[in-house]
Amino acid sequence: MTTQQLIDQIKNKKSFLCVGLDVDLNKIPQHLLALEDPIFEFNKAIIDATHDLAVSYKPNTAFYEAYGIKGWQSLEKTINYINENHPDIFTIADAKRGDIGNTSSMYAKAFFEDLNFDSITVAPYMGKDSVEPFLAFENKHTIMLALTSNEGAFDFQTLNVDGTELYKQVLETSKNWKNSENLMYVVGATKAEYFTEIRKIVPDSFLLVPGVGAQGGSLSEVCKYGMNANVGLLINSSRAIIYASNGTDFAEKAREEALKMQHEMEEILK
Amino acid sequence: MTTQQLIDQIKNKKSFLCVGLDVDLNKIPQHLLALEDPIFEFNKAIIDATHDLAVSYKPNTAFYEAYGIKGWQSLEKTINYINENHPDIFTIADAKRGDIGNTSSMYAKAFFEDLNFDSITVAPYMGKDSVEPFLAFENKHTIMLALTSNEGAFDFQTLNVDGTELYKQVLETSKNWKNSENLMYVVGATKAEYFTEIRKIVPDSFLLVPGVGAQGGSLSEVCKYGMNANVGLLINSSRAIIYASNGTDFAEKAREEALKMQHEMEEILK
Repeated sequence: MTTQQLIDQIKNKKSFLCVGLDVDLNKIPQHLLALEDPIFEFNKAIIDATHDLAVSYKPNTAFYEAYGIKGWQSLEKTINYINENHPDIFTIADAKRGDIGNTSSMYAKAFFEDLNFDSITVAPYMGKDSVEPFLAFENKHTIMLALTSNEGAFDFQTLNVDGTELYKQVLETSKNWKNSENLMYVVGATKAEYFTEIRKIVPDSFLLVPGVGAQGGSLSEVCKYGMNANVGLLINSSRAIIYASNGTDFAEKAREEALKMQHEMEEILK
Repeated sequence: MTTQQLIDQIKNKKSFLCVGLDVDLNKIPQHLLALEDPIFEFNKAIIDATHDLAVSYKPNTAFYEAYGIKGWQSLEKTINYINENHPDIFTIADAKRGDIGNTSSMYAKAFFEDLNFDSITVAPYMGKDSVEPFLAFENKHTIMLALTSNEGAFDFQTLNVDGTELYKQVLETSKNWKNSENLMYVVGATKAEYFTEIRKIVPDSFLLVPGVGAQGGSLSEVCKYGMNANVGLLINSSRAIIYASNGTDFAEKAREEALKMQHEMEEILK
């Protein structure tokens, strides 16, 4: 998917909502457990109920790998279901990968070719040659961790590096990498005041923003400081939407929560 | 596995060799491709030929994920084969994972419980709460990236953070995390001169050392500066051993290469 197609979708749907498919068998409605593939059935119901309100789905690979081969099958069925039924949706493999060059190439092949995701999240610690193999794929997007939404973000990301914080150095350095136009960045919503500074470094890039809702971030604050002319934001919500109810009405309640967020977004976009 | 069991194994085998199982279908002997699971058959032959010379095997998950469900099956068969036939071997899932707390817990469950690896590699960028969920597992080991063997290591890892390099800050900070006795660290062999400084910060920890051989690092240099009273090193070799030949003699040639390294190690241990 091209960036322009993502922008068009945002304008059409009046939404920049990403739904995180972090599916835990202990948290989904228990009646689904009798089915052959409860994780896929759960995802399918959530997607069917929200695909006109969300522009993106983001399965976190950890939640699938935790169930071994069965989990990987659920992931594959989920991405195939989205690609076949909702080709306009921007898909994100939240995998936070990164390794030496030939290994990153294998990860890129796994997620961009084998599974056909539009994008993947990656970690920056190993530098340029660990990320460029992902950037080499045309019309695929690499979403690099910059400033995350967790407490541990302050352990290293905000350390002072030659007069500036590490995450800013990460943003600045990555702009010089080959095919850097395929980069997006993860910036946590719990740190809304940082968006002003971040936009000075990457004014045009899309930012994937976790941490609204369950982790305490504010949508309006993030938009105030983080939005650009093309919106430039994908706001992720996982638990607040997918676990809105754990009864048989889970999909309906998920839609209600997604609709609330889409309405807020529509207001902001006006 | 306890750290003491690993040390005992090193003393018994007079080896601290780790064999990286980075299996690429384009590089393995072509006669294996006719078999139902070429990756597993390749690994099995390598393991059968080298298990008395190596103390550890390290499949890199990227090379398995690149083949989707089939790849995950090969990974599962490989780890099960090692655990069933060579329970003394220290197994490493080279996965370089790391995410917010509840997600890291799922990764830990995937690799420590479901697949039953002894250890996993993780990335430090997201800080304490992204690593501690791994550290919570008793007799499991978390091998955190400190200073890697690739060129991109100099993009961020060696940046000056308040008067010290970032990788040193990562080492220092991680010592204060809960269950930090379960930490080991990745330190690339291509930077042997750094081992002196690293040993000042983590004198007792095991270091997993990639980059000897194919990437240009020297075994004797690494041992000179990096070894401690319990050896404290796991030297990884992947391509130089597993791709020593791509004919029908590949396992035999892999043994020859492993034997060369084990002999060098035995000399150093004297």
